[in-house]
Amino acid sequence: MTDGDRRLHLNAFLMAPGHHDAAWRHPSSRPDRATDVAYFQELARTAERGRLDSIFFADGLAVWHRVGSNVSGGLEPLTLLSAIAVATERIGLIATASTTFNEPFTLARLFASLDHISGGRAGWNIVTSGNTAEAHNFNLDEHVPHAVRYERAAEFVEVAAKLWDSWADDAVLLDVAGGRYADPDRVRPIDHAGTHFKVRGPLNVQRPPQGRPLLVQAGSSEDGREFAARHAEAVFTAQQTLADGQTFYKDVKTRAERLGRDPGGVKILPGICPILGSTEEEARRLERELTDLQVLDYGLAQLSSMLNTDLADVPLDAPVPEHLLPAEDDVNGNKSRFTLVSELARRDRLTVREIIARLGGGRGHRVVTGTPEQVADQMEEWFREGAADGFNVMPPVLPTGLEDFVDHVVPVLQRRGLFRTEYTGRTLREHYGLPRPPGN
Amino acid sequence: MTDGDRRLHLNAFLMAPGHHDAAWRHPSSRPDRATDVAYFQELARTAERGRLDSIFFADGLAVWHRVGSNVSGGLEPLTLLSAIAVATERIGLIATASTTFNEPFTLARLFASLDHISGGRAGWNIVTSGNTAEAHNFNLDEHVPHAVRYERAAEFVEVAAKLWDSWADDAVLLDVAGGRYADPDRVRPIDHAGTHFKVRGPLNVQRPPQGRPLLVQAGSSEDGREFAARHAEAVFTAQQTLADGQTFYKDVKTRAERLGRDPGGVKILPGICPILGSTEEEARRLERELTDLQVLDYGLAQLSSMLNTDLADVPLDAPVPEHLLPAEDDVNGNKSRFTLVSELARRDRLTVREIIARLGGGRGHRVVTGTPEQVADQMEEWFREGAADGFNVMPPVLPTGLEDFVDHVVPVLQRRGLFRTEYTGRTLREHYGLPRPPGN
Ligand SMILES: Cc1cc2nc3c(=O)[nH]c(=O)nc-3n(C[C@H](O)[C@H](O)[C@H](O)COP(=O)(O)O)c2cc1C
Ligand SMILES: Cc1cc2nc3c(=O)[nH]c(=O)nc-3n(C[C@H](O)[C@H](O)[C@H](O)COP(=O)(O)O)c2cc1C
Repeated sequence: MTDGDRRLHLNAFLMAPGHHDAAWRHPSSRPDRATDVAYFQELARTAERGRLDSIFFADGLAVWHRVGSNVSGGLEPLTLLSAIAVATERIGLIATASTTFNEPFTLARLFASLDHISGGRAGWNIVTSGNTAEAHNFNLDEHVPHAVRYERAAEFVEVAAKLWDSWADDAVLLDVAGGRYADPDRVRPIDHAGTHFKVRGPLNVQRPPQGRPLLVQAGSSEDGREFAARHAEAVFTAQQTLADGQTFYKDVKTRAERLGRDPGGVKILPGICPILGSTEEEARRLERELTDLQVLDYGLAQLSSMLNTDLADVPLDAPVPEHLLPAEDDVNGNKSRFTLVSELARRDRLTVREIIARLGGGRGHRVVTGTPEQVADQMEEWFREGAADGFNVMPPVLPTGLEDFVDHVVPVLQRRGLFRTEYTGRTLREHYGLPRPPGN
Repeated sequence: MTDGDRRLHLNAFLMAPGHHDAAWRHPSSRPDRATDVAYFQELARTAERGRLDSIFFADGLAVWHRVGSNVSGGLEPLTLLSAIAVATERIGLIATASTTFNEPFTLARLFASLDHISGGRAGWNIVTSGNTAEAHNFNLDEHVPHAVRYERAAEFVEVAAKLWDSWADDAVLLDVAGGRYADPDRVRPIDHAGTHFKVRGPLNVQRPPQGRPLLVQAGSSEDGREFAARHAEAVFTAQQTLADGQTFYKDVKTRAERLGRDPGGVKILPGICPILGSTEEEARRLERELTDLQVLDYGLAQLSSMLNTDLADVPLDAPVPEHLLPAEDDVNGNKSRFTLVSELARRDRLTVREIIARLGGGRGHRVVTGTPEQVADQMEEWFREGAADGFNVMPPVLPTGLEDFVDHVVPVLQRRGLFRTEYTGRTLREHYGLPRPPGN
């Protein structure tokens, strides 16, 4: 493919009511369908109608603060995506799962199963679980330190890869006459013994159609980037400015290259929250409607958690006091999101109330408000200027925000030759132009 | 319901090629579809056409011995059943999962999610994982002792129940105008701190439609029965003779009563492997065909594992040497299956070869060979004589064995007034006539 043929990749990041934190209060969202599998099947089919590469569900292992003021308590991603798999044909299916609170055998198996069920469309967003509330649900009083979590994650992925490869691609003989279902010499123990795991193997699922699921990651700290450069095939990231996007893009690609990988094998997908209208004014009106619907207490709690501090008593119409912004090194949770938000607070000298409004749309992801052409312009710029291989599309309100994106932005991208008009592959790896890892 | 109205319950125990260990070599089985979700959806729809209460998938966390000589490496039950849920409407969906190698938060959540996805049709076959090969995939060199596994299982179920109940049934307010999605006072931490687990909660899934999934269990040792009597709402069991079935039935019901439970709240479902023909001769022919297709090495390995001994070098046409039959107390794995098989060996003075043939059909479960009327007679006898509340139906070959059962045995049972002709409920609990556990 010459550079002129380079196409962008689109992932739809789905969340019951949409990404704006007031989405659930907007009349076009469906907070009543948060546990309704048919709703998510419909969203997936909309994304598939738009020929998107994939859909994606985030995940955490605890109920977050302030369960009262936003939708929570929805479905678990791997079961949900299994149910979506059989209602779709082409779209990739990316589930988040934690390496800190799972065992590699269990997770390797769930993803292998999803990959079989979907005919090769499974992807794994590898997370290390940054929130202490998650540790409290897994026998711990304190969270596992950031560095140890990433060390465990690296070994976890190594074990999972060995397990996916433990059945050779041609292990199943189906030799009925000879009484040989599989070749025992091609289903091999992995005999892994490391720092965190001891796993004999083999996996009890045949090698999945993609060999291994697509590996996705979204860590942005130093450890997180190094992990992405080594293991990830697609990277979700939150970047506010083109310059930041370019810096991040270059950083991860350079790290990958240094590690001996083809930098084209790591797709960088910054988040974008497109607030769409048929005119710019209409888009701005939707944005204002959403801001007006924000629950202030919820925004404050979110911001306190992102900044790792308690803002309950600060004045809303003044900037965040400097002494409440801790140094990144002191943060054990989501380091990079903390840095991004505190920079935003410092750079634009925003008041607490303004930060809450600014973060409402994408929790730190870039919000682009405008017409389909304007949104496409922004995407094209980032794509052409070395800040993105594609985008993690985060509709502010669902289902309408995804329908609008598919019906109005995708056609613009297609007309500009930037996006596929038909699927050319069947698997998630094929959509992203990534190779199938060879088997044993 | 008066005793005359008492209806039996039927669960279809599904395994890719069927339950006979030579099923995969029989021309009517489909060993090529072991990882094909559409195949299992078709089986589930066949069971639903027969108005069965539920389908069930067994599970283990390792590849068993002799991967070469039988189908293995298929799909994981919870992902598979999620995909089946959306292709069916009424049939219950029972997945096996281990309390020894999972964490309660993870598993409670997966089952809650499946219960939402299926609209209240999830059931959990609680197992403690008897095989040392499973321990080797989870960081252990030696297996966890039998008693400790059951102790952990009891606490595990206690934690899971608290998690399912952590969202009150009416916790979700959906008060859009007031900005209150849920009532935080009705989504409560569980603050569990016990011997094996420390879990703060609440669960991050809303209370499932059934309140809690149906709890199923199949342990038959002393510890296993006590566990069943305390926690199980349905019990799978392998019993060879009516007398043994009656003894087991009475034992579990008595234990449940002693623990203050309604004995009617524990449904006893012995396994039955129906080898069907339109004449008895035709059924016997199918049985012989299957025996002739057995792979002797596989049968020997299975038997060695059940007896917890190595039979590789014993003569095939002589009984199992007494000194190779250890005492039940020395067995750490599947105690009751060991006892059953060693009794069979002693009682009927079978040769090793004969035992392998006898176990081929149902791995220790009762095989009934005959016409639909004859099979129905056997079921009716056990049902009326206090040995069963229903059956765990284990077709020797799939899909044909299930189709034959649904098309020919079910109508006989229906004509006799022993089985429903239409579903009267929507949830798995309703099918089994069991109450929904009240919420907080
Ligand atoms: C688009 C996006 C999606 C993410 N989804 C999840 C998620 O579902 N669960 C989670 O625990 N963390 C999620 N994260 C957080 C990252 O995995 C990571 O922890 C975070 O970016 C902080 O990086 P660090 O861990 O390297 O400090 C997400 C991040 C981004 C940018
Ligand atoms: C019908 C039936 C199905 C079973 N399915 C499983 C299973 O899927 N996974 C498993 O580990 N054990 C399974 N078992 C084994 C039981 O859970 C239990 O371990 C066994 O009966 C031995 O009882 P004990 O553990 O009390 O000694 C099954 C048993 C029966 C009778």
